[in-house]
Amino acid sequence: MFDHTLDVIHRRCEECGALDNLRRAGDLIPGDPVDDYEGEVFADSDVYKWLEAACWALAGNPEDQRTRAQVDDVVAVITAAQRPDGYLNSYYAGRRAAQRWSNIRDHHEMYCGGHLLQAAVAHVRATASTDLLDVAVRFADHVWSVFGPDRRPGADGHPEYETALAELARVTDKSRFTEQAAWFVAQHGSTPPAISGERYHLDHAPLTAQQEVTGHAVRALYLYCAAADLATDTGDAGLRTALDRLWRDFQDHNVYVTGGAGSRHDQEAFGQPYELGDERAYAESCASVAHFFWAWRMLLLTGSGEYRDAMDRTLHNGVLAGLGLDGETFFYVNPLADNGRHRRREWFGTACCPPNLARLMTSLPGYAYAREEDGVRIVLPVTGKTGVALTGGELRISQRTDYPHDGRIVVTVESAPDHEAVISVPAPAWSAAPELTLNGAKLTGPEDADGFVAIRRRWQPGDILEAHLSLPVTVLAAHRRIRAAHGRVALTRGPLVFCLEQADHFDADVRDVLVDPAATWEVRQRPDLLGGTLTLHGTARVQETSETGPLYTPWSDSTPPTRPVTLTAVPYALWANRQPGPMQVWLPTLS
Amino acid sequence: MFDHTLDVIHRRCEECGALDNLRRAGDLIPGDPVDDYEGEVFADSDVYKWLEAACWALAGNPEDQRTRAQVDDVVAVITAAQRPDGYLNSYYAGRRAAQRWSNIRDHHEMYCGGHLLQAAVAHVRATASTDLLDVAVRFADHVWSVFGPDRRPGADGHPEYETALAELARVTDKSRFTEQAAWFVAQHGSTPPAISGERYHLDHAPLTAQQEVTGHAVRALYLYCAAADLATDTGDAGLRTALDRLWRDFQDHNVYVTGGAGSRHDQEAFGQPYELGDERAYAESCASVAHFFWAWRMLLLTGSGEYRDAMDRTLHNGVLAGLGLDGETFFYVNPLADNGRHRRREWFGTACCPPNLARLMTSLPGYAYAREEDGVRIVLPVTGKTGVALTGGELRISQRTDYPHDGRIVVTVESAPDHEAVISVPAPAWSAAPELTLNGAKLTGPEDADGFVAIRRRWQPGDILEAHLSLPVTVLAAHRRIRAAHGRVALTRGPLVFCLEQADHFDADVRDVLVDPAATWEVRQRPDLLGGTLTLHGTARVQETSETGPLYTPWSDSTPPTRPVTLTAVPYALWANRQPGPMQVWLPTLS
Repeated sequence: MFDHTLDVIHRRCEECGALDNLRRAGDLIPGDPVDDYEGEVFADSDVYKWLEAACWALAGNPEDQRTRAQVDDVVAVITAAQRPDGYLNSYYAGRRAAQRWSNIRDHHEMYCGGHLLQAAVAHVRATASTDLLDVAVRFADHVWSVFGPDRRPGADGHPEYETALAELARVTDKSRFTEQAAWFVAQHGSTPPAISGERYHLDHAPLTAQQEVTGHAVRALYLYCAAADLATDTGDAGLRTALDRLWRDFQDHNVYVTGGAGSRHDQEAFGQPYELGDERAYAESCASVAHFFWAWRMLLLTGSGEYRDAMDRTLHNGVLAGLGLDGETFFYVNPLADNGRHRRREWFGTACCPPNLARLMTSLPGYAYAREEDGVRIVLPVTGKTGVALTGGELRISQRTDYPHDGRIVVTVESAPDHEAVISVPAPAWSAAPELTLNGAKLTGPEDADGFVAIRRRWQPGDILEAHLSLPVTVLAAHRRIRAAHGRVALTRGPLVFCLEQADHFDADVRDVLVDPAATWEVRQRPDLLGGTLTLHGTARVQETSETGPLYTPWSDSTPPTRPVTLTAVPYALWANRQPGPMQVWLPTLS
Repeated sequence: MFDHTLDVIHRRCEECGALDNLRRAGDLIPGDPVDDYEGEVFADSDVYKWLEAACWALAGNPEDQRTRAQVDDVVAVITAAQRPDGYLNSYYAGRRAAQRWSNIRDHHEMYCGGHLLQAAVAHVRATASTDLLDVAVRFADHVWSVFGPDRRPGADGHPEYETALAELARVTDKSRFTEQAAWFVAQHGSTPPAISGERYHLDHAPLTAQQEVTGHAVRALYLYCAAADLATDTGDAGLRTALDRLWRDFQDHNVYVTGGAGSRHDQEAFGQPYELGDERAYAESCASVAHFFWAWRMLLLTGSGEYRDAMDRTLHNGVLAGLGLDGETFFYVNPLADNGRHRRREWFGTACCPPNLARLMTSLPGYAYAREEDGVRIVLPVTGKTGVALTGGELRISQRTDYPHDGRIVVTVESAPDHEAVISVPAPAWSAAPELTLNGAKLTGPEDADGFVAIRRRWQPGDILEAHLSLPVTVLAAHRRIRAAHGRVALTRGPLVFCLEQADHFDADVRDVLVDPAATWEVRQRPDLLGGTLTLHGTARVQETSETGPLYTPWSDSTPPTRPVTLTAVPYALWANRQPGPMQVWLPTLS
């Protein structure tokens, strides 16, 4: 189903001129690279993110000749655009080439390069060809000839290159890229400032001294990704301490219940602690993607299920809301309440979100499992397969589930090593301890350890392990410092956050609803609705509101009349796919 | 007391280079007008606004030699900077002169010119000298040689010039300036667009077709000011209809309880209807000033007390909050809730607010009274005097009051015509009908007519008219579509809106307070506090909140414990004059 989205984004990269920018830089088409340049200075990155997404799709479906041909073409365009010295950025082509690196604060050369590196990592994994990887290595070596100890200080105003370098180091097994990543991360907060000295660029203090999440949300989260990569690969204790502190601050003060991050429209920035307004939530789709990336890296670093739960919740709400059911419209901004005016769009002048969503969606199989020393850990319950080579043979499993609509996960062992191995299943915070069966018999013993249950045994091909995650409807209240959620509750079930959308309610404005937080909610499977989903049903009260009255009136102790109403809540990720109308996540409670 | 503020702003206009920009443009000091230009493109306007403020101060105190000397000096600087053809803008001086009017959307040449015109109006009124008025007329005639029917279409991206032209017409008695104002107002929404075609510039539709307040708040409100001037001076029914519609939309959907306007940080814009968040309220000080200006013009147009009440409320909250008690620090942004980080500042890169506040404060005596055909109307209860010439003699009155701290207004007739005349007193919506006495005897008969009570009689010198406005504490609730105020109330008394500030509370965080909306509040006069004010005192409950817990937890029906607390509320305009700490206007209610 994601083919259409990939196609659409490829077409938009053509239409907005991003591919032609690279073609002109590589002399593949006529025109002046400067005079004819189209779009923002970071337009290359949209192409790279599309390419990364397409490569992950190709990895899952190697027979897809159409995508393969598009990938080959774009790789050729990128290869041609690279300068002999390894530099690659279509904005600084032609007569602007002399100004390379003249504005590292704003002009995103390393940011684009980071996306090139990540596309190259995906490309080599999908195709085994090192063509693009060679381009990426030449680029990184060029950057390191300009910046570095005893050379020029600096780092990109928009982090991304650092985490990409860490990935490049893993795929090439070259530690120099890890060292470069560490050096660039350490440039943040240098004296004198290497970037701007501003919080917006995470340059106000060394990362190890940063006390709270701050600045531009996506920049911050990408920088934390790099730090987590480095802490994992180098064991850097200072980074680890900072990451633990920043994660705690993020989760306890600055994240939306949807996993969205960065509440402010201005500067696309984190707000102050608890500044998580709903109707003007910014919660850029890219920030949810970045939250997912960071949580994954923290999971790899620590093994703790808290990070898995954050991935799960963010994916199913903040991330998936970014893409319309039509597969070709996107949200950049993700409010948690709306009057019906906010709709997905086909593209954006700053088009970061669509290809970012795409690369996460096509790479999801890669996040479903984590390798353990002696087995495999299921991170995301999804239907699919994986295998890990262990001494004594491969542990190969398949997984079937309708999660998050249903909590049953069926794991079939397809091949097993000749000794004990571990299969871990998630034990999310929103579920009771999973009930386990092995080949139909109840399995007791294994207990939840930090968000996972590890089943260690001598597996046999054909073994069937079932885990049943309870998915009760949970009514959440927010910390009372969140002003937008005070006196309100949110409906959740498993990782899904629900909202009330006007499209399901003909007899009340959903903004007039008052819910009883103790009410029970019926769960209905709705294969017919919104591409197949589930809904919550319950009763509440409605207090009608006139939109013609005055804004401020003396308080009166006469309670306005209410009447009963039946409510249908739908997953937040699916909102704004029907006729426009009010929506809200945080529902006022009956007092 | 305002002398210090005027002095400070004059000094800052020197320090930030705005005065030197004009001096260089007029060859009064060496330097290159382009290379040495300092500040934003609209820096001239800060000088003009200071000058206007200083002239109004001088009008009230003609013996102030120091201000007089500063005014004379600045008028000389401005006069020297004017080009022989009448053009005047220090940004387009020197070699940039050839680019005049090349960016009317963004570069504020008419905006600056409008402030020049308004300064000239103040100058002639304060000094009877027409020196600056002559400069203003030459400028306006120059503009009209460039723009106009059969010449170039266009209008300034930032309205201001239009209302200034209307004032210029009144003071010069030259109708051509009224016609020019009408033409510029009508340029908005032209096809093809004369400015940008965007809502931000109020250029998306002709003003007469605009259905709702939208775009940049100050730009919008200044444009409405011009429209109100024109509707008054020309009787234009289309403008009047549009103004009635836009005012209703503004008051019923987009104004803060403080009179603040423009809720969005991004684009300094109006939000959607009811989008009036508190912690991220933008509510630029200039927008409150502009709200006051528009309301005054609507009062002159219609005579209705609703506009008087809006002036009163906006002045005492949204406007006055902009200026610190030190007389030298200013708010640009005016949130209605804060964690203690938002503090007044000495100056801003875009320094529009300080001199805008100053010109309103020094011109307040001019807004205190409105002339009636056969008498005088008290608009703002303030201590002072006024006189109107009527056939049969002058009606001269003095007014004494401690409003808004006290509702007693004492009017003494100093001279009277030889026939019946009218003295009108305000009957604000927040007070019961005023109790009137004449020379100590209760006066019955005159009734509230649209917000005022008119007393018509044959006045005698020495007559003492007293009006007693009741000023009960009124607990306001907001329209429930205002999400930030849902389940909350605000404390008011007369025009004053109160807030809880941490500085008055040592035993509870003011954000943890739950108030009983039916509670009674004691009013205390506090001459010792915050330069002399009154406070409200009452009891409430406090529900302590930990700032270390998780953001989202399952709702529980166990009510967290509360304990009683004594509260002190202070006028919103006075917040942030003591040690930093949380503040909020909208107080959550006990459920």
